[in-house]
Amino acid sequence: MSISTLPLNSGLTAPLKPVVRTCEESSMIIVMRHDATSKQIADVVAKVESKGLRVHISRGEERTIIGVIGDDRPIDRTQFEVLDGVEKTVPILRPFKLASREMHPLDTLVPLDGLKVGGPQIAVIAGPCSVESREQILETAFAVKEAGAAALRGGAFKPRTSPYSFQGLGEKGLELLAEAREATGLPVVTEAMSPEQVPLVARYADVIQIGARSMQNYALLNTAGESGRTILLKRGMMSTIEELLMSAEYIMAQGNSRVILCERGIRTFERYTRNTTDINAIPVIKQLSHLPVILDPSHGTGKWEYVAAVSRAAIAAGADGLIVEVHPHPEEALSDGAQSLRPEKFAQLVKEIGRVAEAVGRDC
Amino acid sequence: MSISTLPLNSGLTAPLKPVVRTCEESSMIIVMRHDATSKQIADVVAKVESKGLRVHISRGEERTIIGVIGDDRPIDRTQFEVLDGVEKTVPILRPFKLASREMHPLDTLVPLDGLKVGGPQIAVIAGPCSVESREQILETAFAVKEAGAAALRGGAFKPRTSPYSFQGLGEKGLELLAEAREATGLPVVTEAMSPEQVPLVARYADVIQIGARSMQNYALLNTAGESGRTILLKRGMMSTIEELLMSAEYIMAQGNSRVILCERGIRTFERYTRNTTDINAIPVIKQLSHLPVILDPSHGTGKWEYVAAVSRAAIAAGADGLIVEVHPHPEEALSDGAQSLRPEKFAQLVKEIGRVAEAVGRDC
Amino acid sequence: MSISTLPLNSGLTAPLKPVVRTCEESSMIIVMRHDATSKQIADVVAKVESKGLRVHISRGEERTIIGVIGDDRPIDRTQFEVLDGVEKTVPILRPFKLASREMHPLDTLVPLDGLKVGGPQIAVIAGPCSVESREQILETAFAVKEAGAAALRGGAFKPRTSPYSFQGLGEKGLELLAEAREATGLPVVTEAMSPEQVPLVARYADVIQIGARSMQNYALLNTAGESGRTILLKRGMMSTIEELLMSAEYIMAQGNSRVILCERGIRTFERYTRNTTDINAIPVIKQLSHLPVILDPSHGTGKWEYVAAVSRAAIAAGADGLIVEVHPHPEEALSDGAQSLRPEKFAQLVKEIGRVAEAVGRDC
Amino acid sequence: MSISTLPLNSGLTAPLKPVVRTCEESSMIIVMRHDATSKQIADVVAKVESKGLRVHISRGEERTIIGVIGDDRPIDRTQFEVLDGVEKTVPILRPFKLASREMHPLDTLVPLDGLKVGGPQIAVIAGPCSVESREQILETAFAVKEAGAAALRGGAFKPRTSPYSFQGLGEKGLELLAEAREATGLPVVTEAMSPEQVPLVARYADVIQIGARSMQNYALLNTAGESGRTILLKRGMMSTIEELLMSAEYIMAQGNSRVILCERGIRTFERYTRNTTDINAIPVIKQLSHLPVILDPSHGTGKWEYVAAVSRAAIAAGADGLIVEVHPHPEEALSDGAQSLRPEKFAQLVKEIGRVAEAVGRDC
Repeated sequence: MSISTLPLNSGLTAPLKPVVRTCEESSMIIVMRHDATSKQIADVVAKVESKGLRVHISRGEERTIIGVIGDDRPIDRTQFEVLDGVEKTVPILRPFKLASREMHPLDTLVPLDGLKVGGPQIAVIAGPCSVESREQILETAFAVKEAGAAALRGGAFKPRTSPYSFQGLGEKGLELLAEAREATGLPVVTEAMSPEQVPLVARYADVIQIGARSMQNYALLNTAGESGRTILLKRGMMSTIEELLMSAEYIMAQGNSRVILCERGIRTFERYTRNTTDINAIPVIKQLSHLPVILDPSHGTGKWEYVAAVSRAAIAAGADGLIVEVHPHPEEALSDGAQSLRPEKFAQLVKEIGRVAEAVGRDC
Repeated sequence: MSISTLPLNSGLTAPLKPVVRTCEESSMIIVMRHDATSKQIADVVAKVESKGLRVHISRGEERTIIGVIGDDRPIDRTQFEVLDGVEKTVPILRPFKLASREMHPLDTLVPLDGLKVGGPQIAVIAGPCSVESREQILETAFAVKEAGAAALRGGAFKPRTSPYSFQGLGEKGLELLAEAREATGLPVVTEAMSPEQVPLVARYADVIQIGARSMQNYALLNTAGESGRTILLKRGMMSTIEELLMSAEYIMAQGNSRVILCERGIRTFERYTRNTTDINAIPVIKQLSHLPVILDPSHGTGKWEYVAAVSRAAIAAGADGLIVEVHPHPEEALSDGAQSLRPEKFAQLVKEIGRVAEAVGRDC
Repeated sequence: MSISTLPLNSGLTAPLKPVVRTCEESSMIIVMRHDATSKQIADVVAKVESKGLRVHISRGEERTIIGVIGDDRPIDRTQFEVLDGVEKTVPILRPFKLASREMHPLDTLVPLDGLKVGGPQIAVIAGPCSVESREQILETAFAVKEAGAAALRGGAFKPRTSPYSFQGLGEKGLELLAEAREATGLPVVTEAMSPEQVPLVARYADVIQIGARSMQNYALLNTAGESGRTILLKRGMMSTIEELLMSAEYIMAQGNSRVILCERGIRTFERYTRNTTDINAIPVIKQLSHLPVILDPSHGTGKWEYVAAVSRAAIAAGADGLIVEVHPHPEEALSDGAQSLRPEKFAQLVKEIGRVAEAVGRDC
Repeated sequence: MSISTLPLNSGLTAPLKPVVRTCEESSMIIVMRHDATSKQIADVVAKVESKGLRVHISRGEERTIIGVIGDDRPIDRTQFEVLDGVEKTVPILRPFKLASREMHPLDTLVPLDGLKVGGPQIAVIAGPCSVESREQILETAFAVKEAGAAALRGGAFKPRTSPYSFQGLGEKGLELLAEAREATGLPVVTEAMSPEQVPLVARYADVIQIGARSMQNYALLNTAGESGRTILLKRGMMSTIEELLMSAEYIMAQGNSRVILCERGIRTFERYTRNTTDINAIPVIKQLSHLPVILDPSHGTGKWEYVAAVSRAAIAAGADGLIVEVHPHPEEALSDGAQSLRPEKFAQLVKEIGRVAEAVGRDC
């Protein structure tokens, strides 16, 4: 027993609560009975829309689920539970709605040319950090095509920390990418850095990349969503998984659900690698969301020596694909040379991940 | 002594080098002799510009310094050292040039109405997270004016993690800010989130804020630089001090040196506070750069209870000012209520930092 | 409205809950009525102890508070609420109990020679990282004494990342510290790195330091607690504020409440400084706990140039003191030279923090 | 061109250098010629030892390498280069020496019962967080044995953040582990938390675990090294890879090279998982060191749902094994229930990693 003497007139300090963000509880799913009729479903949808709420319908083999998204005000669920054909309503407690697996239980498949990203086949996207010249991009495109890549990546507009660094070839780079697509048949993935660039990039690209530094550039997310193009959304280098899904929600709220998520490493105190690949993010995203997720081992590690190991890990963990930096002459690259693979190393990598894909019931 | 047997045919593994970013060594300062003539200075400038390099001149009482910024290629300094009137040339090894103290040894003072940010007087900017209504912004403006604030903050365009959250009043919010300025005489600080918003925001605002999530939105930085308005540049929650200065460099490279930097807390593993205020950043920035730096204790802590303590710390550490969230009714705020001060607490805060300012040889 | 077709036999995925640590709800405070008699208080204590629970009594001017700490099982509070003289019982929801301000509302003052750490006077502890020689420690001791330090720090046992680095002078270093105390009258703060070292260190030191790497060395915490000596507990570079308070709880659970907490910087992605000083921790700890807290600006920044600014910030934020590395010849120091102040810089620092202390209603 | 006027009497600020830790350059390897005789090698060793330096010999098929480790003073390499049979000397620039691949180019194999950790076969260590009862540990031991585990883990001494939490069964727990070994034939891995516990734990355990919070408990590392037992060294939750290897160096400097490294997740800002598994660490450690490295997916994620995915990733990335928490009734576990697998899930996991191991040319 310990005793101390004190004047108590100060009263007791109110307890401090940890900082918590409240989720908007303004969304729900309506689970229809398995024998609900089309008329009943239509009536429920009409009722929801009459309240000014947005509707997202998933028609399953056994039953239909109606997702409902409102604004900031809470939805009164009881008014929907009494409708004919409704089995129950369930609030969506997470802040992301359209991106959540609750609203869309099955995996979304995003078409990339012939391949469906999110399906059994692994999607490997490869190419240089920046488009530097006609020779460089064509040489790389043919090489990655031959090695088995499903798409060509290459930056025409480059986000650079320094205003004095190479900023990319701009529209000239887009034209070269289009030429490489023409020559090889590979669909093209390239970044748009601002809303104004979106129409231009959309004219040339099959997939518009939103880079890590732009993950919370909401004007860009909205414009990218409106473009209707497939979007490759990279996680910010210090953004949470939840924030990544919220940014996907911005794109999907524009009616565009062709979103591929990308883990590319986060910032930590560790200094041997440029970033720390968050491998946990793969199963976490698979659980929280129906969207496909790929991994960028080049930025995730920052060193080409580690790219193969981390690529194999990504596929083993359940990633739907990879985006890998490949350069025919890394020592001469204008950006990211240290983390770029030579074509022959990339070909070797594709073989290795093919074996791992098979081991987890997929193919490459 | 320990012994192990091994076949050595594998050779020795090449040592791994830590990942290092190379600085562009494409800039220098030319230090003129103290007796250099205007003609000699002009000749040096002409020579530099003839090489396609950019020039920044600092005319001191004792001598003139000519800053030179090139592109990615190294500058041959010897060709300038032989010119008449040149004492020596010094390479600028840091990646930021215009923002560096090497190029501009004395503190830059940025005018904010009567006050000069970066000078002896502390600048306190205060107001609500978002402009919510005419009553709210006017009530707050009068309250912070009376308490001693030098400027009014308030968001009209709000970057929100969720697309379903309140996104700000938009242009209506800007009009209300202008009305509050009219009524109180306080200059107005408000955020632009995308390049397209810059001309609109510039029409209403005295200072354009670049928010933490936009710190590496390079298109926005360029447009903000071109606007000629004073820019309040907030550090990204995931950005290094060096990256903050590189983003300032983007703005300054457009010819705009009216840049106020703002430390607003970074992300760490600590969970009792929303962010970790990086107080070290204040003396570090003061050493590396000539630009003024203020601190945002509201985002830095995420809890109004800690705002006063961290505000006092900022001033004691040498910050040139504060930007503080104040709301007349925090419990009803549409955003950031938990970290907003009531007006009476804010008035108390201003008194406290006045005493600390005096203790470090400044005033408030 | 968007529609997708899917087989629903997979069912809905169970929602993922964020990882939450549960607090042990096995402690409470019993608030006695203001007119409770000594007999009633004694009866309540007897009842509590009869249940095998531990008791901590705070006798205030107005009323007495009885803190109760159990084991992992929940306490049935109703059985105590019915006792004579009891006004109410309140559960302590935080995991730290003895260290919490709920159990002990007023500030604890820890004596350090004449001074009381946690009271109005700022405690400045200064000295070299390591004791290196008789000359070095005596020269430093006299210098910091003259500048106004309240205690002398110096490591005899040094935790070093490398087994090949200087590990400290060991007991010889302790003898030199004792000699310096004899000569200057300054109490001595020095580190114990393992339970076995505690008795030896306790023989020489006034305050036993538990270093950052040892913050969760529970055997050491227990032994340090048993020693009865004042303990300076440094926050781990990777530890949350809550974990720091839990480690204080280990010491206090041994009946030793002479604990001084120390913020010394945490690890983040920022690379210009060795650590990131968590200035938020000062007001957070003051709110959560009654224990005094000081700050180590030398480790917090890793560079002597920033020590003065961050020291002033600490005092302005409400810290009860500082622990500063001072070396007569930093360029020759066997450890931590880059972050050590010369004596004349230290003397200047003490003057500066004296002025800041006065500005916040304290003295130095 | 921009111009500003300023008095230059303040001079130029000295440039700030990033904080860099210097490596001790007091070690080297002596590469002997391929035709060096035993006599020549012995003479070189004698010469090295006569200087008070320590020797580590690797006899390869083609040539012999003599590692030399000194104290803080630089070694004069020229005096060794002139000796007969010496081809060249190479300084070891990294701070870790005995643990570095430079000094020991081939993989070290650490025996664990029949298995060799670091060889082709994957080592799976499994068992409960804490030994809780005879029934629990025996049931788990038989289950993990049947599923294919190579060793049994279980804590008898538990490092707990709270002094009020279950601290483990102590020696009783060790006895139960020994009984489980007797019954199943599985070698036992269990933690020692302080130097005094090492002899006791060494009496019962096949492998002594050094936990994450003890990674820089140098007294413990030294005692564990002296014990001669195999050591499982877990990375601290906020320790760099380099620091992990430096802690291994402490153990090896005691003459004990039976060290298994373990990546177990680091602290980051991400909050959906308890820690962030640093998958990059696997190839980085394999490149830097010859020691085997395993991964702990249970602590790395903190949620059993993610354990299988991250386990597969670890093996795909090149880890030599796993340490997995398994509990027959996770909902009743006294610690870490949320991250423990049920035995049937564990059996499934072993099958999955067997397939991945095969895909990367190993077996399980």
